[in-house]
Amino acid sequence: MASTITLKKLGTRIREKRKSRGWTQEALAELAEIDRSYIGGVERGERNLTFSVLCQICSALNCDVAELTKGIPGGNP
Amino acid sequence: MASTITLKKLGTRIREKRKSRGWTQEALAELAEIDRSYIGGVERGERNLTFSVLCQICSALNCDVAELTKGIPGGNP
Repeated sequence: MASTITLKKLGTRIREKRKSRGWTQEALAELAEIDRSYIGGVERGERNLTFSVLCQICSALNCDVAELTKGIPGGNP
Repeated sequence: MASTITLKKLGTRIREKRKSRGWTQEALAELAEIDRSYIGGVERGERNLTFSVLCQICSALNCDVAELTKGIPGGNP
């Protein structure tokens, strides 16, 4: 079970994508209709988010889930 | 919020991938260490699964999350 590692990877990619848009966590949170502190937890890999929430974040970032998750979970490291 | 549609899409892809392996739900459930009835709910799009569970399913199916989620959520339909 590499869930902590995969959640951290996912969170890092969300943060990178958000920053590439020049957005604050507040801006992403508002667009995705999610609490700002929850976005922070997701970006740090501390939240085991549901698929629906992941889709909301992707919609806000205007990307698909596949773009954020390439290589995750990453076979058997 | 197209979460029902996106969960159904994801569930359908998981089912297709499982069947392409020639596996029963029981076989996938055992490999993914998830309850069989939960797998059934996921395949029907009735379960808003967490990212960790999605990763467990992908690991069992030997694919990455990106492969299962291409085009999801799919911009603004």
